[in-house]
Amino acid sequence: MTENVLITICLLLLCTIVFCDISNNEIEQCNLPKKIKDEIASYAPVVEKIINETVYGKYKGTTYDHLADFIDKFGNRIAGSSNLENAIDYMLNKSIQFNLENVHGEKVQVPHWVRGKESATLLEPRYQSLAMLGLGSSIGTPPEGIRAEAVVVKSFDELKNISKKVKGKIVVFDQEYVSYGISVQYRDYAASTSASYGGVATLVRSITPFSLNTPHTGWQDYNDNITKIPTACITVEDANMLRRMYERGEKIVIELKMEAKNLPPATSRNTVGEIVGHSEPQKIVIISGHLDSWDVGQGAMDDGGGAFLSWNSAVILKALGLRAKRTIRTILWTAEEEGLVGAFAYVKAHKNETKNLNFVMESDEGTFTPHGLKYSGIPDVGCILQEILNLFPTINATQLQQPADGAPDLTEWLQEGIPGASLLNEAERYFWFHHSAADTMDAENPEALDKATALWASVAYIVANLSFDMPRNSTDYLHKV
Amino acid sequence: MTENVLITICLLLLCTIVFCDISNNEIEQCNLPKKIKDEIASYAPVVEKIINETVYGKYKGTTYDHLADFIDKFGNRIAGSSNLENAIDYMLNKSIQFNLENVHGEKVQVPHWVRGKESATLLEPRYQSLAMLGLGSSIGTPPEGIRAEAVVVKSFDELKNISKKVKGKIVVFDQEYVSYGISVQYRDYAASTSASYGGVATLVRSITPFSLNTPHTGWQDYNDNITKIPTACITVEDANMLRRMYERGEKIVIELKMEAKNLPPATSRNTVGEIVGHSEPQKIVIISGHLDSWDVGQGAMDDGGGAFLSWNSAVILKALGLRAKRTIRTILWTAEEEGLVGAFAYVKAHKNETKNLNFVMESDEGTFTPHGLKYSGIPDVGCILQEILNLFPTINATQLQQPADGAPDLTEWLQEGIPGASLLNEAERYFWFHHSAADTMDAENPEALDKATALWASVAYIVANLSFDMPRNSTDYLHKV
Repeated sequence: MTENVLITICLLLLCTIVFCDISNNEIEQCNLPKKIKDEIASYAPVVEKIINETVYGKYKGTTYDHLADFIDKFGNRIAGSSNLENAIDYMLNKSIQFNLENVHGEKVQVPHWVRGKESATLLEPRYQSLAMLGLGSSIGTPPEGIRAEAVVVKSFDELKNISKKVKGKIVVFDQEYVSYGISVQYRDYAASTSASYGGVATLVRSITPFSLNTPHTGWQDYNDNITKIPTACITVEDANMLRRMYERGEKIVIELKMEAKNLPPATSRNTVGEIVGHSEPQKIVIISGHLDSWDVGQGAMDDGGGAFLSWNSAVILKALGLRAKRTIRTILWTAEEEGLVGAFAYVKAHKNETKNLNFVMESDEGTFTPHGLKYSGIPDVGCILQEILNLFPTINATQLQQPADGAPDLTEWLQEGIPGASLLNEAERYFWFHHSAADTMDAENPEALDKATALWASVAYIVANLSFDMPRNSTDYLHKV
Repeated sequence: MTENVLITICLLLLCTIVFCDISNNEIEQCNLPKKIKDEIASYAPVVEKIINETVYGKYKGTTYDHLADFIDKFGNRIAGSSNLENAIDYMLNKSIQFNLENVHGEKVQVPHWVRGKESATLLEPRYQSLAMLGLGSSIGTPPEGIRAEAVVVKSFDELKNISKKVKGKIVVFDQEYVSYGISVQYRDYAASTSASYGGVATLVRSITPFSLNTPHTGWQDYNDNITKIPTACITVEDANMLRRMYERGEKIVIELKMEAKNLPPATSRNTVGEIVGHSEPQKIVIISGHLDSWDVGQGAMDDGGGAFLSWNSAVILKALGLRAKRTIRTILWTAEEEGLVGAFAYVKAHKNETKNLNFVMESDEGTFTPHGLKYSGIPDVGCILQEILNLFPTINATQLQQPADGAPDLTEWLQEGIPGASLLNEAERYFWFHHSAADTMDAENPEALDKATALWASVAYIVANLSFDMPRNSTDYLHKV
């Protein structure tokens, strides 16, 4: 998940809080026609079959195994890299091999940032190598590095207060971790804010609630008309140490070397496959995740898990012969990490399909043990989804929350009011691993992935096969079904 | 804590389990004379004073602050390094500055292993840099490295089963983490066991229950008459990945480069300070921790916390004018990590004092929130300690367990039957940080250290001031007090 969607998510969250009572009341006041409730309830045998095959039967462990095969083969997959394009080719071939339909890649121009070698070294008050990761889109340093005295602040306000001391300095941010959404502003805007006061580089405490001296990377944004300066994340531990030194009045000197470069945009692809609907093929249910990752760790959690959850859901539905009325389309987005680049391009290119998007799903906030769904849409979407989730007591995945955060690539569609969902899962440790070397297969679990796949596949199939469309603005028609 | 003491600890643990009921019964059957119970109870005001001054008053936060000053100044401190000797000089000066008595260093010859540059790189089936840490005492590789095909096993038994395949190979161990005590045998003996089958190097899964792609180092032992081969730890995540690749039948080729060297022994020192007893100065209560650390991370937890817990306990007792009947001696051991080298030398040099060792304490398994003590000794030692711990309900540190594990430097004394104790604390995450870059000040907490210091200082003072000696073999005399 990148920060470009955070304002949206914050707004959605704010809306949720503000309208919380109303929404809950509305869910409580669900008044779906009996015919609709009966129709949804009639899917119990199908759900049982999908759960049995996926959690206990022939497809048990397959989401994990497909993912592990892929992750071990390719490792991480940053936008612009030939490794990502090879991984996309592999998924296109694999999609054909597993009988998905209309398999193809859709080209999109993506940023091409490369890290190169990098290091941060504390020179005074004593020598220490500082674990670090340059931030996506950061410029590099001169080859000899930037050697400068450091100031250490806990907030933008504190930086403003000492703004006269900042010129020529490296600015270290040791901001408290509040939440990812709140704290990530320091990763995003540290460089431009510091540069506006004359800072020459920034080192930002990694955005995580827990660290084993683990640096986390991520995208950052330079403001227009501000000098671009190199920027990187250091570990929570080192940021705290530098702050203690600074508060003691010790002179801190750091040398930062980064070879980072922004190369010309590269061509990548969103990876698409379908199970074409048998009676309303023009109507579409999307299940998705992003195939690209950061260039550290393996991108197994962010977002290998989400991508393979969606891809294997389609594979299993196809193999079980569960072709729905509507088309189920799996999309593996590209260049999510650089600002939802693949998704924005897709939405633009498929404007003419927008009216036919029945329901959109993405999983990009962990595929830990699932508890249900998070949704966006009008209250009756929640009513319908709750009826569907009531079919999942055996895997304990009956909970419904809103909004559908953890689905960044769906941002534009959700903003337009297209109903959608993300996976509600035990993601409490998600940001421990996120954008770091710790994002590996060890963050994934076969049983959790099986349950999530059973849920994901079932929901996609039921929604795609219902006798009525998922409502966008009005639910009147539901009562005429 | 090194593994050299683990067999002892395992035996002690086994004894504890076997005699658990007996021991518990014996504690339950405590039959201390009323006079002794009353005497211990009379320390309530002293304990209250120490707790008030340490947890809430003048000394609040000082254990953390002294430790942070030290850790930030020196970083990690491996045996043989000038940094460790500078750190010892600093502690000797600081001990004098804070009015400890008979402050001196006691020289000891210690191993001098240096890591140098090192790397492990997966070359086939794909390129990936593997996070690693060479193990203490390991030899290095030739300058060009060792490039070899790898076999991956989960146990020594599995290695034996494929022993004919091992010649010329790098052996990767992906053993399950059971407990530190059980699993560390793979770090200890991987190299010699593999070499006996013709292996050319070993990469061992780090000994930890949780990883964020975190390699952990530690000492290892070469068997006599076996070819020495380079050995290192890799991360849990990479060990699992290599095993998956191996189980798929993929050819794994790894290049290992290590500059590690064993230099001639160096001179280090155990750091000693006292509060001389006012009436029986020849009798001694020891409070201790080790000042050396591994050469990664900061050695803040292993064992900065334990060392400063003991040192600051003495400082606070001295400042509060709490001079006991017996001498309280604080010892900051050296070269614990290379096999309790400082402690073994000290025990040998102080043989003539053994009869006067009244009680020995060490903290080397975390200084997280304290719950009480772990002890070794005859059951009446437990009875006395439980009476003392009953004085600590306000800081919730009244629990007593046995044996006194987490006190490796006391091994020889405890084996001789000298009563002793270690800190019982919330150490569930201890091995997450242990011997890794994550061993920093962030593993320490000011409030937990204050409570531990109040407990540690109080227990040391009470035991050193009781009218009777702590019993070793017979408790008959207690009834004649």
